[in-house]
Amino acid sequence: MSLLMDNQFGELPVDKTVDTKFFLESVAYLPPFFDCLGSKVLVPIKSDISGNITKIRSVYDKDPAKYATLQQIVESEKEAYGTEWPKVGATLALMWLKRGLRFIQILLQSLADGEKDENNPNLIRVNITKAYDQALKKYHGWLVQKIFKAALLAAPYKSDFIKALSKGQEVREEDCMASVRQFLINYTATVDAIYEMYTTLNAELDYSV
Amino acid sequence: MSLLMDNQFGELPVDKTVDTKFFLESVAYLPPFFDCLGSKVLVPIKSDISGNITKIRSVYDKDPAKYATLQQIVESEKEAYGTEWPKVGATLALMWLKRGLRFIQILLQSLADGEKDENNPNLIRVNITKAYDQALKKYHGWLVQKIFKAALLAAPYKSDFIKALSKGQEVREEDCMASVRQFLINYTATVDAIYEMYTTLNAELDYSV
Ligand SMILES: CCCCCCCCCCCCC/C=C/[C@@H](O)[C@H](CO[C@@H]1O[C@H](CO)[C@H](O)[C@H](OS(=O)(=O)O)[C@H]1O)NC(=O)CCCCCCCCCCC
Ligand SMILES: CCCCCCCCCCCCC/C=C/[C@@H](O)[C@H](CO[C@@H]1O[C@H](CO)[C@H](O)[C@H](OS(=O)(=O)O)[C@H]1O)NC(=O)CCCCCCCCCCC
Repeated sequence: MSLLMDNQFGELPVDKTVDTKFFLESVAYLPPFFDCLGSKVLVPIKSDISGNITKIRSVYDKDPAKYATLQQIVESEKEAYGTEWPKVGATLALMWLKRGLRFIQILLQSLADGEKDENNPNLIRVNITKAYDQALKKYHGWLVQKIFKAALLAAPYKSDFIKALSKGQEVREEDCMASVRQFLINYTATVDAIYEMYTTLNAELDYSV
Repeated sequence: MSLLMDNQFGELPVDKTVDTKFFLESVAYLPPFFDCLGSKVLVPIKSDISGNITKIRSVYDKDPAKYATLQQIVESEKEAYGTEWPKVGATLALMWLKRGLRFIQILLQSLADGEKDENNPNLIRVNITKAYDQALKKYHGWLVQKIFKAALLAAPYKSDFIKALSKGQEVREEDCMASVRQFLINYTATVDAIYEMYTTLNAELDYSV
């Protein structure tokens, strides 16, 4: 399968803690995936996500034992930073990263569920719009929303997106979607667990950029 | 004066070669200036320009004597890279950087010349649009042009722009513009010299992104 799916996310333990090292390894496949989509317009998104990953990794690298799970990172930062928290450190980076991850999850799920614009079955705008509305829109001011609408017009065709998901090979849509469904199992569980942790630890913010 | 103008560009020698070290020192003030304008939307532009500067600096640092002028860099790369040139190395970075510099030059010149939208004298959209049309538009495909149009709506008010140009202090527009005119003398000469060099060395490309 694809760059994105080459590195399946691991199964979560029962307490739903997310292992930092494995998480960082899996999400590292994400930024290069934006290159496969072949649009310059995605460069700023790629750098934003790379920046999040680098921020989290740099905290982890300071003390891998202390920061073995994502939960431990966020909890330590909650203690370490006073009122600055949660708009700070790896807590902030993961807050935004999880939204990008959710965007990708909803997009892939919507494709796997066969949701499409019947008049334009080879476009994925309906799927992208759904993902954007649910994962990101409320965190974007009117200007970024407007830019997103413009950028949407550059969304790849479904066939090209599937090709990118399949390491550049032409595969049957149905075969690709079977792998996507497989990938989504642990991936969705991980993203959900991160969201739950932000709610539980009261780490979520809803300011918009 | 401003961050941008704190570091006046030097006067050009008669042969119009541009000293690499002084040039890099002067343009280093540019990326932080985008922060003063206070819009998130400018982050990708800031990184693009920073990337250009870093690329040129890394070539210069390899052999400061050999690369003492921008001309020497471009000429050496013309020899060193075969048919890849000029879409490569510091030649490519400077090709794009000069367009951003030209954009800023035309914007500042237009403001200094008092060009304005009589109905909205505190907006600088006409000045930005003029700069964009002359310096960048032809190098942008329809999508980036569309995104630019959306981003234009986030352009700062003239009064805020003047404040940013004046280190955050409230100064009279006329006083600020007098400094801008002063700044533009050597700045424009430098940008012109770089453009001329690209023409002379046949280093200019007109592909769009
Ligand atoms: C000449 C032309 C001029 C025009 C220039 C226009 C430029 C337009 C710029 C558009 C914005 C690019 C996307 C980036 C948006 C970012 O602003 C937001 C917030 O970004 C967060 O901000 C925090 C501070 O508040 C920290 O710095 C975080 O950083 S920290 O690590 O330091 O803590 C950082 O991620 N991230 C986001 O909204 C995340 C976006 C994820 C997107 C997911 C996939 C979407 C795929 C879409 C497919 C169609
Ligand atoms: C969730 C939301 C999703 C939406 C995301 C939308 C994102 C929109 C992205 C907009 C583009 C941002 C601007 C960057 C544009 C860049 O693509 C171009 C070419 O950039 C060049 O490309 C080369 C290869 O062809 C090399 O990589 C150069 O790099 S190299 O160093 O490696 O050689 C690089 O500079 N630079 C440009 O067009 C230069 C732009 C200069 C701008 C000057 C000031 C303008 C001020 C404007 C005020 C209003």
